[in-house]
Amino acid sequence: MSATPYKQLEQEWQRLHAFRGALALLRWDAAVMMPRGSADVRGEQLAAIETEQHALLTSPKVSRLLDRAQASEATLSDWERANLREMRRQRDHAIATPATLISRLARATSIAEVRWAEAREKNDFALFAPHLEEVLQLVRDKGALLGQALGLSPYDALADEFTPGLRVTEIDALFSALSRRLPSLIREAIARQANAQPLPVTGRFSSSKQKAFITEIMKALGFPFDRGRLDESQHPFTEGVHGDIRITTRIDNADPFTGLLAALHEMGHALYDLGVPREWATQPVARERGMAMEESQSLMIEMIVCRSRAFVTYLRPLLERHFAVSGPEWDADNLYRLLTRVRRSAVRVDADELTYPLHVMLRYDLEKQLLAGQLAVRDLPEAWNTGMEARLELRPATDTEGCLQDIHWAHGFFGYFPSYSVGGAIAAQLFESLRAAVPDIDEQIARGEFGGLTGWLREHVHGLGAKLPLQALMKQATGKPLAAAPLLRYLESRYLDATR
Amino acid sequence: MSATPYKQLEQEWQRLHAFRGALALLRWDAAVMMPRGSADVRGEQLAAIETEQHALLTSPKVSRLLDRAQASEATLSDWERANLREMRRQRDHAIATPATLISRLARATSIAEVRWAEAREKNDFALFAPHLEEVLQLVRDKGALLGQALGLSPYDALADEFTPGLRVTEIDALFSALSRRLPSLIREAIARQANAQPLPVTGRFSSSKQKAFITEIMKALGFPFDRGRLDESQHPFTEGVHGDIRITTRIDNADPFTGLLAALHEMGHALYDLGVPREWATQPVARERGMAMEESQSLMIEMIVCRSRAFVTYLRPLLERHFAVSGPEWDADNLYRLLTRVRRSAVRVDADELTYPLHVMLRYDLEKQLLAGQLAVRDLPEAWNTGMEARLELRPATDTEGCLQDIHWAHGFFGYFPSYSVGGAIAAQLFESLRAAVPDIDEQIARGEFGGLTGWLREHVHGLGAKLPLQALMKQATGKPLAAAPLLRYLESRYLDATR
Repeated sequence: MSATPYKQLEQEWQRLHAFRGALALLRWDAAVMMPRGSADVRGEQLAAIETEQHALLTSPKVSRLLDRAQASEATLSDWERANLREMRRQRDHAIATPATLISRLARATSIAEVRWAEAREKNDFALFAPHLEEVLQLVRDKGALLGQALGLSPYDALADEFTPGLRVTEIDALFSALSRRLPSLIREAIARQANAQPLPVTGRFSSSKQKAFITEIMKALGFPFDRGRLDESQHPFTEGVHGDIRITTRIDNADPFTGLLAALHEMGHALYDLGVPREWATQPVARERGMAMEESQSLMIEMIVCRSRAFVTYLRPLLERHFAVSGPEWDADNLYRLLTRVRRSAVRVDADELTYPLHVMLRYDLEKQLLAGQLAVRDLPEAWNTGMEARLELRPATDTEGCLQDIHWAHGFFGYFPSYSVGGAIAAQLFESLRAAVPDIDEQIARGEFGGLTGWLREHVHGLGAKLPLQALMKQATGKPLAAAPLLRYLESRYLDATR
Repeated sequence: MSATPYKQLEQEWQRLHAFRGALALLRWDAAVMMPRGSADVRGEQLAAIETEQHALLTSPKVSRLLDRAQASEATLSDWERANLREMRRQRDHAIATPATLISRLARATSIAEVRWAEAREKNDFALFAPHLEEVLQLVRDKGALLGQALGLSPYDALADEFTPGLRVTEIDALFSALSRRLPSLIREAIARQANAQPLPVTGRFSSSKQKAFITEIMKALGFPFDRGRLDESQHPFTEGVHGDIRITTRIDNADPFTGLLAALHEMGHALYDLGVPREWATQPVARERGMAMEESQSLMIEMIVCRSRAFVTYLRPLLERHFAVSGPEWDADNLYRLLTRVRRSAVRVDADELTYPLHVMLRYDLEKQLLAGQLAVRDLPEAWNTGMEARLELRPATDTEGCLQDIHWAHGFFGYFPSYSVGGAIAAQLFESLRAAVPDIDEQIARGEFGGLTGWLREHVHGLGAKLPLQALMKQATGKPLAAAPLLRYLESRYLDATR
């Protein structure tokens, strides 16, 4: 007996998964190991495998199988039905974007990235502007084609690639609720912290000691070093697939927290991958969780869990043991103040969790205007600086610290930024329910026990993969649709409650 | 105007080259970086890409283009004609081996390699035996199918994959000429060396210092570190493609020569890749030189060049500078005696150039018997030990030092071993001609100048890629067909001539 159309599709997606794993390794290597002169060779390798993926996704055979599987959908389990939905979504996205557009975009962005780096180094936006213009035009074409095919506005269609189902109306509702409260919250937090400035930590912390320190903490959180690695790279990231997950961090020898917190952020992504049911690991239903859900997990681990008083209690003896440090600056109280300091800054990646959403909202507004043709590329620096002043009461000293700080637009990523802060709201709402279900969560974390944390996440989030759409998952896990209130409650409690 | 059939084939092979580069990286990573538990995942990735390569090679489109290009062969240049010949050869090999067999073999070997490493570590052949059995069965199927398609015996067909055109009859002729002289030559050399035993070197040589030392020498030989890497692995190898070449070595902290000489061996392979004309780098005419030619280059560099008195003269001040060593054991005379010491040993990779061919002949005999079903896998350890006793008058203390010492069979490489010693014969014959053409070659090497060496090799060997078949290349470069005599002359001169 031959396999059903649905089972045949699973096999096709197993091949796609193998290609994806190979691409992940090629990218990991490019960032961590590759000699710097070999980028051209690597580019050809990536392009060859990506072309193969695209050909497979858009093949008549796959479309035929999708139609036949859809016709007998009633015979499928919940998981299979959700998997079929994600297969169709991938196929629809792939078919809506012609291969020629993909390769023009690949070429334009690979040049734009180089020019962006140059412009950033020389603080000269004019070097980057024409290339951003070209990328923007191609992304506009892509948004129009995708939107037409999916019945969405161009921005919604682009955002849907990053976070399935996330729409401008939802983002706007969330962001406007946040922007009503955040500016005053930031002012109050800064005023409160002014009375208790933390002592800075000093010393030299070798890479090898930091890696041993981070490794111990990653192990406590459940990272399987027999099926994963920790390395250093300029920009921290998580790559790989279930069964071979690779985290990188950027280590600062003057400070043991930069490398740790970046690794813990990535650890949130890795836990998501690790929590997926093994039998679904090669299928899209396991992976297509969207960037907002992804980011919710990394922000929950890095921000909510690992900057808490409870975590600092766990951390303190580890710091002593790994680095032989002592003195008042290493006291738990001082460390907590260091890790939760609020400061207005021009640079997103240096921002704390209170000011971060304002950075995201600025980019969200500007990229919508750029796409709609309401803002010209040449006017971007001024619009950026004005927007920063309105939101964060500061003006970047240079474009390098202003509109040239992020690679995303050079990379063709429009519709990505909102995921960061939507993820932050998801994280707070999930953690509120987690805390209610595991009342001694703080005591567990303080003892370095993370089973209560990862157990709840596995049951309500990780183990579901992409089975449920975002809002359905939130209702099932927290009883309510996604809202701004839990994030604001969490921020008020952490930054304004004198007892914490 | 559309591209000619031949030009279209070049484009197809450019894609194959990109796949080959991706596979090389996946394999390099598996040996150097991959977490031990991830072999299953990697196996799926390798299999998916190999399946794609195979599908491309055996596609009706490629066969049609090959026929059409063949019909207008008269319009092609020498290089293009040779390239077309190698394309056909690859297609013929691929068509003879079904895709299912290839992917089963890829999966079986990636597991067998991990089990082999485990078995070797624990000196427990039983851990490896069932996996070797599975690989052997699949290789047997492959040999039968290939042999049928190419009109060759199964062993000739398997060997042809590694060294095009090399047949059992040639191997037997060469090996019997060598085995007539080698046993007595080994006895004479050992007796002669007994009167002048070298002092051993002692000390601790850190990995980082050794890597700096090796790197300096690799640079002098022309290795481009902006387009290549040096790393450590259990079994030294060269992977990658023109533009990203990766060498590994195995470092022994008690001795600065193990890691250096292994790296120099690999350097011989790398020089071959580096010497290929750039415009042919993605095409089979550049790459299909065969393992015997490959090995000739690594043996020439490691054995003939880098264990010479001239090279020791260059090496001595480097040793002083990198490791601050001094004393009579570091004198040039003593170092030369150390590097050319003849000793019967159980382990092939530790063997000197006099005893090495006997290790190869043992494996050649055993793998023919395994393939023919005349030797059962469970009887391999005993057959190995008996064979070692007959050829080298010693019995390995453990299977780790016996039949578990090489990865080749776990890797599915049957028909590969003879290439090592055929390569040794090629190396000696080429170097005899090189010495005649560059009479001051020793003086150059002693000064750390390798231009005379690499220049001759580039002109007569590297720069030709696979343009000429092995015997035609030998005749063009040395005036004679391949024979055992030059190797025996070289060995007698190095090991028996009292003036050297």
